[in-house]
Amino acid sequence: MSGEMGNGPGEQSEGPSKAKQGQSRAEKRFETSIAYFERAAKVIPGGIYGSKSPGFLVPGHFPYYLSHAKGSRIVDVDGNEFIDYLCGYGSQIVGYGNPAVDEPALAQARKGDLLNQPHPVMVELAERLVGLVDGMDWAVFVKNGTDATTLATSIARADTGKQIIIAAEGAYHGAANWCSTNVFPVFTQAEQRDVRYFPYNDVAALEALFRQHREKIACVILTPYHHPTYKPQQLPTPEFIATVERLCHSEGAYFIMDDIRANFRLSMKGSHSFFGAHPEMITMGKALANGYPLSVLLGTEGLKKTASSFFITGTYWMSAVPMIAAMATLDEMERLGGTERLAQLGRMLKEGLESLGREAGFSARISGPLAIPYLTFDEDPDLFLNQRFCAAMADRGVFMHPHHNWFISLAHTEEDIAQTLEAARGAFAELRD
Amino acid sequence: MSGEMGNGPGEQSEGPSKAKQGQSRAEKRFETSIAYFERAAKVIPGGIYGSKSPGFLVPGHFPYYLSHAKGSRIVDVDGNEFIDYLCGYGSQIVGYGNPAVDEPALAQARKGDLLNQPHPVMVELAERLVGLVDGMDWAVFVKNGTDATTLATSIARADTGKQIIIAAEGAYHGAANWCSTNVFPVFTQAEQRDVRYFPYNDVAALEALFRQHREKIACVILTPYHHPTYKPQQLPTPEFIATVERLCHSEGAYFIMDDIRANFRLSMKGSHSFFGAHPEMITMGKALANGYPLSVLLGTEGLKKTASSFFITGTYWMSAVPMIAAMATLDEMERLGGTERLAQLGRMLKEGLESLGREAGFSARISGPLAIPYLTFDEDPDLFLNQRFCAAMADRGVFMHPHHNWFISLAHTEEDIAQTLEAARGAFAELRD
Repeated sequence: MSGEMGNGPGEQSEGPSKAKQGQSRAEKRFETSIAYFERAAKVIPGGIYGSKSPGFLVPGHFPYYLSHAKGSRIVDVDGNEFIDYLCGYGSQIVGYGNPAVDEPALAQARKGDLLNQPHPVMVELAERLVGLVDGMDWAVFVKNGTDATTLATSIARADTGKQIIIAAEGAYHGAANWCSTNVFPVFTQAEQRDVRYFPYNDVAALEALFRQHREKIACVILTPYHHPTYKPQQLPTPEFIATVERLCHSEGAYFIMDDIRANFRLSMKGSHSFFGAHPEMITMGKALANGYPLSVLLGTEGLKKTASSFFITGTYWMSAVPMIAAMATLDEMERLGGTERLAQLGRMLKEGLESLGREAGFSARISGPLAIPYLTFDEDPDLFLNQRFCAAMADRGVFMHPHHNWFISLAHTEEDIAQTLEAARGAFAELRD
Repeated sequence: MSGEMGNGPGEQSEGPSKAKQGQSRAEKRFETSIAYFERAAKVIPGGIYGSKSPGFLVPGHFPYYLSHAKGSRIVDVDGNEFIDYLCGYGSQIVGYGNPAVDEPALAQARKGDLLNQPHPVMVELAERLVGLVDGMDWAVFVKNGTDATTLATSIARADTGKQIIIAAEGAYHGAANWCSTNVFPVFTQAEQRDVRYFPYNDVAALEALFRQHREKIACVILTPYHHPTYKPQQLPTPEFIATVERLCHSEGAYFIMDDIRANFRLSMKGSHSFFGAHPEMITMGKALANGYPLSVLLGTEGLKKTASSFFITGTYWMSAVPMIAAMATLDEMERLGGTERLAQLGRMLKEGLESLGREAGFSARISGPLAIPYLTFDEDPDLFLNQRFCAAMADRGVFMHPHHNWFISLAHTEEDIAQTLEAARGAFAELRD
């Protein structure tokens, strides 16, 4: 595979051999992207950094810069169009440029977004989320997902007076030093020192951690299901969730559900509800406002006093536009058929891809929930086949990430899925040859 | 004064006696604000949290919720209009709802804001900032100001392999645990452990810190001038800046300029240029995109490799709209007269307020740069007079913060300043009586 997530393109591997063969064709197809990237490399570390780094995709087969998007389609700076299954890293849930969201949001943008004090929509959105999300009593709006996960773990630490955070190996909770994959000893020694990891769904390992750190555990933070980078997705076992809740309860530790990535794609009551879990704090973001920048931390009544004693602040955190977008996104999700519709489209994609893969002689397997699928091949532990498949799909105008889970949006149509499956038929044939 | 910045209204003091007398009038003037706040208190910790908490202003004299804004004017949910000198905590530099910024930004919003990959404007903005800001060679775009200051100190730590961050007492660098005013022992012991403070401009104290922590110092982080909460602003002495640079150089520590609050209000080359300083990293935000959410970390060539080895990422960080707004804001600043115009308006306000104050028998003093003024009274160490003055100004339709520095924007006019001074004449008379 092309190295750790987040490597700059200077450090990326050569990619699969097909990429090399297709180089001159790729240079022409992505001529404008490449020209911008060459300029970028002079003034931006890595040119494009983080999860959007070209090295995290398959170099030569994907664009570097996008120009615009509509519904389920994205268009790059060279005019290439793709059916998109990344959805702005999960942020698009009712489609790019959906007027039902953009019209009210942009009307407020003209009237004032960032004001000295909040707009009343903040109250309306807090009331709505508290009414909607199972078991939650209050809401605090922040900006990045990392703001919400960091605040949640900090509130747990402050409330318990304890230090240790328990998380699952390979889980992503943001890019702050406490949970980042940056490997610099100065952080490992300090901010990452009190974070302990166990293998997801491993009840015995979690019990061992709780025994080992008795009376020092502030919280367990988990995503609603496990979506590690570069690996198949795993759903939680009922025994696992019951164990987390039993251990947290007996130890006085808090159970935090980091629902930023799945957000409302599994249930309008929150993904914990879908899996029968009962966390004390929940983080949401990404699809919450269909890509407008907004995250939220929700919590139970017992934590409200500790939360209100925190200095929770950011200049952009109470801006009105993303909150108006969030209200409209919730309305639009309902109008477009909600989670049932997402699952229906996801099932069509899953069954089609697995069946076409089998027909071509591959053990293609879609893991995870229907609305948030990810493809791996059983015979492909290093993801070379994934890379080749996603490159072949990109060549055919379908944007599927080889190393990150995919997303279905309510702007996807049966025709999009059918067109995707037709492209997959060609891609599998190319892989087989 | 009304307690530490960020206290929830439940913990705020009663405010000055005038506030009590005016209570029923205030209840009527802010009827809708109060009704929203009562709803908010049920579902949001503190109702309104952080720097936007009503307790940080003067309860009863300021609105809690705003509806819209235009140019230099803000309008609350009860229809009260104010000439605004907070400018969205400094974010508005060419005025609320400025079409020269909003038209191109919102046109892109309809075409796509958050995409899977960056929009080419990211390259253009990086090139422009590197060309504009003195001594800087690269740019990394993030979202919150705190993202930028945390990244800067982290890069300094990673590059030097050293832990200690030196900052000025009372300086604000964000709300992350390492620099927050949250006083919870679990953070003080861990994330705040390696941050050391000295009194701003105190050369001997800084030299002592460097002697004490030899070979352990990663960086010094400073705002371009000192703007502590609740105190007069202080400009740096030339000796102080020279000492910072000499000590950092001899110790191999980095000098970080946190220019988020002042940003382009002092110089289009960056505030460090205004004061003759030579930092290796600079953070910018707030006015950078006239309120659209965007921050940036700029740095010198020598740090580019370390920066590119970091996993720098956030779902919303490469969104196109705020970057297009930043390009337009820079254009608009030039068109409207830039920093010279801001200083000219600031001088009118400063001279007028100090003179009217003196005439009424007060030692009113405006401290700080002309474009970012703050009023204190020599005879008023507890800021009760500040609170009464700002309350009296708010009663007269002028929004001046009693505890936070003010901002002039290019949407302010001579007529606004004249109207403000007329209100101040009345406010000083009220204070005297």
